[in-house]
Amino acid sequence: MEVEVVTRREELRPEALRGRAAVVIDTLRATTSIATALAAGAAWVLPVDSEEAARAAAARLRDPLGEAPLLAGERDRVRIPGFDLGNSPAEFAPGRVRGRGIVLCTTNGSRALHAAAPCAERLYCAALVNAGAVAAELGRTGAERLTLVCSGSGGHFSVEDFLTAGCLIERLGAADGLEDPRGEALRLDDAALAAWLAWRSGRERLRSIVEPGRAARALARVGLEADVEEALRLDALDVVPVLRDGRLVALR
Amino acid sequence: MEVEVVTRREELRPEALRGRAAVVIDTLRATTSIATALAAGAAWVLPVDSEEAARAAAARLRDPLGEAPLLAGERDRVRIPGFDLGNSPAEFAPGRVRGRGIVLCTTNGSRALHAAAPCAERLYCAALVNAGAVAAELGRTGAERLTLVCSGSGGHFSVEDFLTAGCLIERLGAADGLEDPRGEALRLDDAALAAWLAWRSGRERLRSIVEPGRAARALARVGLEADVEEALRLDALDVVPVLRDGRLVALR
Repeated sequence: MEVEVVTRREELRPEALRGRAAVVIDTLRATTSIATALAAGAAWVLPVDSEEAARAAAARLRDPLGEAPLLAGERDRVRIPGFDLGNSPAEFAPGRVRGRGIVLCTTNGSRALHAAAPCAERLYCAALVNAGAVAAELGRTGAERLTLVCSGSGGHFSVEDFLTAGCLIERLGAADGLEDPRGEALRLDDAALAAWLAWRSGRERLRSIVEPGRAARALARVGLEADVEEALRLDALDVVPVLRDGRLVALR
Repeated sequence: MEVEVVTRREELRPEALRGRAAVVIDTLRATTSIATALAAGAAWVLPVDSEEAARAAAARLRDPLGEAPLLAGERDRVRIPGFDLGNSPAEFAPGRVRGRGIVLCTTNGSRALHAAAPCAERLYCAALVNAGAVAAELGRTGAERLTLVCSGSGGHFSVEDFLTAGCLIERLGAADGLEDPRGEALRLDDAALAAWLAWRSGRERLRSIVEPGRAARALARVGLEADVEEALRLDALDVVPVLRDGRLVALR
């Protein structure tokens, strides 16, 4: 398996994803929230790239319960006025989202997903909470070419996204030999190699690395420290969000 | 000390370097060659961003020996036709460069230097061969704000540049506490933190990480494997290239 890492969504050239599997990572917080929502029984999550697109989709679509989908998302980290939910993982609890469709608009992650969706052969979402589940699925399906897209934060490199990419790479390969489940060597590009190295140093002290990072500090400034706690629950969720007909659903 | 890392020269906004110390890193090969040249007694190295600028500078300038400076540089990794030297560190030997001025034109490193030169408050060059010397100088001078500029390679992330940045960070701080020489905490941005983490995993096996990387493989394809060997000689050179009046000289 050949693995490359894109370190910020601004570097992503969607057309370069053709013929590749892609995993979008926005650990703080969009892909943690998506994994949480689908693990909680949401029917689907539709990532959009603007508030206008979110409202238009909500007006047009119905979810399996026959209702308009929930509107979720943030602007400057806080819930968009008039939306049902923000972008805190804990908001996507079973009592709120089970059976529902969700339209999600966030600053980084949902835009990365929206950009990648038309081009990638298959598209997944991963965060630390479901890294093991996504890696296992990638191993099972034997994708030959894989791009891990770190969303980053407002144009900046995000350490938690890079570590999540490194975690996926570790779980794809034997820990040190970097062999994929078929016993063949993983072929890593330079950024993938660096992400894997960073993960090996960082995995035992995720909190002390992620909390001083740019995204976690910005969340703390608006009282959302608990979202960082949620996002650090490594492998807590056995869910693989995959794109089907433009919407993210839990792989069965 | 506050430390940030730019992961590719294309991300550098030169004006953001105002009031900051900057270290340009192009371990394969420009900054390794510059450190080698200055350690070998070259009087100065002038980084330029085009072959035309290199030829014009060589025609206009005289070095301390009263001669036209040596023209050095590469295009697609091999020596530019008509130039005196390519960009292989071993070419910059004392017998060839002692006392001389050198005009250097390379694809990534000399362009990053040329872009950063007008803006940074102080500008240094580092590679693995002189990381310890540069870190010691930065510690001595107590720069408050530091940007480590990884040149990358043809628009791509380069693992050897990122590891060199991580090496500098390790040497700036106490190994684990990340304190600077004054006992204050280093404040690392997300990319700096990731570079430091990657270095901690990679430092014991630099060869096995750098050799499969993009830049080293490209050099091997044109028979320049020996340049990678040269570049991996960690702390071999006690030289600090610093910009003075537009030219890189060895700090005395």
